[in-house]
Amino acid sequence: MSGTDFGTEPDAGTVYLVGSGPGDPELLTCKARRLLEQADFVLHDKLPGPKIIDLLPDDRRKDVGKRAHGDRTPQSEINELLVQHARDGQSVVRLKGGDSFVFGRGGEEAEYLAAHGIPFEVVPAVTSAVAAPAVAGIPVTHRDHASSVSFVTGHEDPTKPESTVNWAALADTGGTIVVLMGVTRLPDYTDALLEAGMPAETPVALVERATWPNQQVATGTLETIVDARDSVGIEPPAITVIGDVAGTRESVVEFLANESAAGASDSATSTRE
Amino acid sequence: MSGTDFGTEPDAGTVYLVGSGPGDPELLTCKARRLLEQADFVLHDKLPGPKIIDLLPDDRRKDVGKRAHGDRTPQSEINELLVQHARDGQSVVRLKGGDSFVFGRGGEEAEYLAAHGIPFEVVPAVTSAVAAPAVAGIPVTHRDHASSVSFVTGHEDPTKPESTVNWAALADTGGTIVVLMGVTRLPDYTDALLEAGMPAETPVALVERATWPNQQVATGTLETIVDARDSVGIEPPAITVIGDVAGTRESVVEFLANESAAGASDSATSTRE
Ligand SMILES: C[S@@+](CC[C@H](N)C(=O)[O-])C[C@H]1O[C@@H](n2cnc3c(N)ncnc32)[C@H](O)[C@@H]1O
Ligand SMILES: C[S@@+](CC[C@H](N)C(=O)[O-])C[C@H]1O[C@@H](n2cnc3c(N)ncnc32)[C@H](O)[C@@H]1O
Repeated sequence: MSGTDFGTEPDAGTVYLVGSGPGDPELLTCKARRLLEQADFVLHDKLPGPKIIDLLPDDRRKDVGKRAHGDRTPQSEINELLVQHARDGQSVVRLKGGDSFVFGRGGEEAEYLAAHGIPFEVVPAVTSAVAAPAVAGIPVTHRDHASSVSFVTGHEDPTKPESTVNWAALADTGGTIVVLMGVTRLPDYTDALLEAGMPAETPVALVERATWPNQQVATGTLETIVDARDSVGIEPPAITVIGDVAGTRESVVEFLANESAAGASDSATSTRE
Repeated sequence: MSGTDFGTEPDAGTVYLVGSGPGDPELLTCKARRLLEQADFVLHDKLPGPKIIDLLPDDRRKDVGKRAHGDRTPQSEINELLVQHARDGQSVVRLKGGDSFVFGRGGEEAEYLAAHGIPFEVVPAVTSAVAAPAVAGIPVTHRDHASSVSFVTGHEDPTKPESTVNWAALADTGGTIVVLMGVTRLPDYTDALLEAGMPAETPVALVERATWPNQQVATGTLETIVDARDSVGIEPPAITVIGDVAGTRESVVEFLANESAAGASDSATSTRE
């Protein structure tokens, strides 16, 4: 496919950019569920999680998360697939984990579709950046603790000059910091925040596979969370919550029905005194 | 009610802290919808919007958003109502607009319930902070434009010393800034951001009543958005999106099915050159 088209494709189907929420099928929106039932074709990756992927119609779905050789389908190929299926008049759902417009490349897909004259609709969803802390009993904002919250990617190396994340500025906001894709580089950005002057005793929580059958939580402080990660065995996908709000979990977790309901392994490691 | 109880109330019902999403009933999660159908009692305010409030059972709901004299029910009274109904063995839904844990006081309610031995469950939802930009074609993060996004309250006076929002630090993050409750003080915090060195031509969008029947959008720059707000007539509830991502709307809006579907008044005012 070459060049950019102008005007709407006359008989093109609509592409729905749909978020799945964090993984519990009941946290799909009613609209997502309806569109998944009606779609001629569903393109997804692994992040929606096993329970939601199990719901998808096997003959009308394509997993673009992993290819035969183990690498991911390039974004350019996904974009073209969306356009091709829509040009065939199909109703296409592009299903992403969480919300498509929160570190989900939904913006790029929207731009590509518009540039090719394909009508699209955005179907917002429950982002894991809010939901993973929430189901662990942690509100990302709180009157007494945080009047802002920042979502940031943790997959960049903070010591590299090309890093686009300003950890010092995030620390200076005084608000909650929620890191996505931040399991591996946890030591790097906790160091960056400590260097920026954030108190060592700032509470931190890690929530892995929130709302999946094997949800895990680890808690600690900026100084102790790397050890807590390792002793609990937290792996991606997980959310890191940094800030005083993470400390409120302790006072509510006993009455938090989410954790008993999910049968979540209660592996919370409170390494603070 | 005096003092704090210890241990779980033996026959207490569960309180569900449920977010409604931005207002379109189809953006309720499946779980929220089920719980609303099953609840013995629903406590809500106005923010879920007219379409969702219309779905609630009249004989089992209480609107705590406005009282007879026009003022709001104090939070302390809401907290006690939740505890009382749960102690009566009822299944109680506390329904908030958007997500309960994003500027929704869900954290305070959770703490109060736990302190009184009432089991509670958090049901995460689609926050307007993500959804309002999204349905206007604006992704809050974007590979080319923003590797972080901050949600912040706009109802504080930035010139007052007691303001807890550090606008200069938010500007320094280089990421997208999403302001909630920020229609009235728009001139104050756009000034604060300009003073902090944010470029005057930074794109800004306002999205009012996202996914409600009368959604409105206004666009401009840090310098022109106050005029755009006034000429379109943007009123609360609305979300302000500040950052380069707000500029991407222009290239996709023609193919954005959300706006035609919603019958949204296309009052976008592009005051940038
Ligand atoms: C590429 S980002 C996509 C985020 C997604 N669009 C969203 O709104 O949640 C992938 C990251 O999302 C987070 N994530 C997604 N689902 C999660 C879940 N169920 N539990 C914990 N973290 C999750 C993890 O930080 C993961 O590394
Ligand atoms: C007290 S805050 C509650 C936020 C809510 N908990 C959420 O997650 O969306 C109220 C603010 O939410 C925003 N808001 C809520 N619903 C909205 C909608 N449908 N469209 C635009 N803004 C909305 C507005 O900024 C409003 O002033």
